[in-house]
Amino acid sequence: MTPPKTPDAPPARLSLISRHLAPVYPINTPYAVERLPSTVDTSLLPRIQVREITTTTPKMSQPAHPTLLIPGPIEFDDAVLQSMSHFSESHVSAGFVATFGETLSMLRKLFQTTDPASQPFVLSGSGTLGWDLVAANLIEAGEDVLVLGTGYFSDGFADCLRVYGANVTELKAPVGTKPTLPEIEKALSEKKYKAITVTHVDTSTGVLSELKNLSALVHKVSPDTLIIVDGVCSVACEEIDFDAWGLDGVVTASQKAIGCPAGLSISMFSGRAMKAFENRKSPPSAYFASMKNWTPIMQNYEAKKPSYFATPSPQLVHALHTALSQILAKPVAERFAGHKAASDKIKAAIGALGLKQVAANPDEQAHGMTAIYLPEGVKGAELLPILAKKGVVFAGGIHKEIVTKYIRFGHMGVSVLDPTRGDIERAVKALEEGLAELGYTKS
Amino acid sequence: MTPPKTPDAPPARLSLISRHLAPVYPINTPYAVERLPSTVDTSLLPRIQVREITTTTPKMSQPAHPTLLIPGPIEFDDAVLQSMSHFSESHVSAGFVATFGETLSMLRKLFQTTDPASQPFVLSGSGTLGWDLVAANLIEAGEDVLVLGTGYFSDGFADCLRVYGANVTELKAPVGTKPTLPEIEKALSEKKYKAITVTHVDTSTGVLSELKNLSALVHKVSPDTLIIVDGVCSVACEEIDFDAWGLDGVVTASQKAIGCPAGLSISMFSGRAMKAFENRKSPPSAYFASMKNWTPIMQNYEAKKPSYFATPSPQLVHALHTALSQILAKPVAERFAGHKAASDKIKAAIGALGLKQVAANPDEQAHGMTAIYLPEGVKGAELLPILAKKGVVFAGGIHKEIVTKYIRFGHMGVSVLDPTRGDIERAVKALEEGLAELGYTKS
Repeated sequence: MTPPKTPDAPPARLSLISRHLAPVYPINTPYAVERLPSTVDTSLLPRIQVREITTTTPKMSQPAHPTLLIPGPIEFDDAVLQSMSHFSESHVSAGFVATFGETLSMLRKLFQTTDPASQPFVLSGSGTLGWDLVAANLIEAGEDVLVLGTGYFSDGFADCLRVYGANVTELKAPVGTKPTLPEIEKALSEKKYKAITVTHVDTSTGVLSELKNLSALVHKVSPDTLIIVDGVCSVACEEIDFDAWGLDGVVTASQKAIGCPAGLSISMFSGRAMKAFENRKSPPSAYFASMKNWTPIMQNYEAKKPSYFATPSPQLVHALHTALSQILAKPVAERFAGHKAASDKIKAAIGALGLKQVAANPDEQAHGMTAIYLPEGVKGAELLPILAKKGVVFAGGIHKEIVTKYIRFGHMGVSVLDPTRGDIERAVKALEEGLAELGYTKS
Repeated sequence: MTPPKTPDAPPARLSLISRHLAPVYPINTPYAVERLPSTVDTSLLPRIQVREITTTTPKMSQPAHPTLLIPGPIEFDDAVLQSMSHFSESHVSAGFVATFGETLSMLRKLFQTTDPASQPFVLSGSGTLGWDLVAANLIEAGEDVLVLGTGYFSDGFADCLRVYGANVTELKAPVGTKPTLPEIEKALSEKKYKAITVTHVDTSTGVLSELKNLSALVHKVSPDTLIIVDGVCSVACEEIDFDAWGLDGVVTASQKAIGCPAGLSISMFSGRAMKAFENRKSPPSAYFASMKNWTPIMQNYEAKKPSYFATPSPQLVHALHTALSQILAKPVAERFAGHKAASDKIKAAIGALGLKQVAANPDEQAHGMTAIYLPEGVKGAELLPILAKKGVVFAGGIHKEIVTKYIRFGHMGVSVLDPTRGDIERAVKALEEGLAELGYTKS
């Protein structure tokens, strides 16, 4: 269950080698546990050894390209990108099963959960698939869900819940803010909700929602309500203490602070959430996103047993394994502190340029991205190409109420944690120069 | 709409370069067309040029590994694997939008459809997600669907359809066979079906379903019935003439004969199917798998306009672009013929070893895989590790009625089309030797 300790070498390559020395290819049958009993005792299988791979990782040089500083996808580490090119493996081979199993176990550490009842999921899909996982498995048609409205992405979660029949109440806050605890307490006292959803960082506004006190409030005033977090833009850059805070579900994606290319929906659910799923009166209302189909598969992979419901992506899972191994080589608290320190610097620099943030309140500002209002007269459609010319890619707006009025600067992963890259300094400088070229002077 | 012609150079690298010279990074806003009008005129944007990349593709050497000859994932070409390591790009950058758009256009050629009303989809997900796409968008709760039962995978499609409320009739054939045309005609005459589904190659048995006459029959006796094909184990190795045969939907995955790592659900729907979707009385019954959410995005990407619903996987899409460019460098008919020729050789060799196929009738045998009954007394759990030791990975059984009695040999993509690899010869030799080691002699 413990990820391999590889403090002094690229984990992916070591892992690759260890696979080659491990017993491999038991019976290559992609069966589902519900359908057939496990009959494979890998300890009895012959051990094979193919040609050993050199332990020196060839330095992968990414071609020169503008630095991607949007709120996901982010810039990726060389070793992670290299894992994406892993040679083809059977999704039920012992080597890949071990890699997938370790990946699931490492997620427990990232989410800070030691409760064995917690259940991780890694599925092929966009981050959005996590909303389906919640809506189609934890909620039944007609059940009430309270959605804390922070912007584009909380609206999306609400839409998804409605598709699967939830009766959604949206508690919306003005752009750039989040609902307050007294407002939430009032809403919870008016109706009994099956679940409350909170977008930890709404990527449309850069608003950070506080989870610890929110969760304590929900547990106090509505103890049966499941606490579901959209952590797409927060997992691996904002602190999430799954067990201590009593969270029931966190859904995220691979391409943001986790630092693995897009294509994986990643989530963690509490024992209480899994119980709620098991106690459904109706079957799950989706098939590919069904916990009924995936839970035994995830449990088998983590127990290092081959299992099949739908083919996972070995290459993406290898890349996630590499990314998580890198993340967990240091205490996660250091990672969160590193993102906060970088964010503080960026926000100070933006303030010094005379610019305002969409999230005005410092307590409500995300640490992995900054949504910046454009100065009067400066158009994003003019500024962004200038920044790109300077080698820095920012994102435009996405919140429909202010879409043309702001830009978004993503600062997650290697771009903030590897100071030798100088990504952030170049980005701030490019922003300053770009604004000056468009005639902006700090008033 | 035409993919770039790159007959004499690795297409992915050229494409990479062309991106760098193209106008890039218009306004980096991942907006959805339903929500905001397109305001970007890329022709007016500054052209930027970053350091040019060398045109010589460094020979990527995949580490030594056993040859993967299961019915997917298959062995991948070096250039395809290399595309998986593409540096990070914004999913709405002009460069990536062009790559994705060309990929969608190339799919039209692979499926042999020139009807502009046909609609391709490429989504992050396993092949199974294609079933959800059909079940949640083309079928409404209570509508009748006829599923032609050929094995494990037609059962799965039926399960998925039921989850979304379809009233499923399964016309099941004995293991190793498929329903006959008279049986299908009888079933179609007894009830009016919204759709009929056929698993082109059931990966559990290697049974090939014939589509041309089947489609003609359905069009004749039940002209309103949508003809939906599960082409997961057939697209890019079996002939599919989408327009000529009047098919309405073909769903597949990246990791089989297309030769791109797993992680993409790939599909094509006819104008008639899209009309059926638009004429739904109820909204689509899934969110991530909703055609309402994805159709405008796919249309925008193909028109080279940035668009956003959920983040696609740029790396996987680059790999698919490379794989499709390689496939379309030659007429698709040659590709199908190449798979047939290799399959004929393999089946002859298997016959010469005295082994029987699960699909007994030569007309019902797939050309990208062979399901082989084990001789009396030989266990798959013993034979497969011996083959692996010899550097060849086959798959075990998966059809529950015969699971321990057979093995599966996948022969798709580079393993059959690149004769210099010698994969097939080694596999047949390993099979012969492995059986001999277990005491088998041809009786």
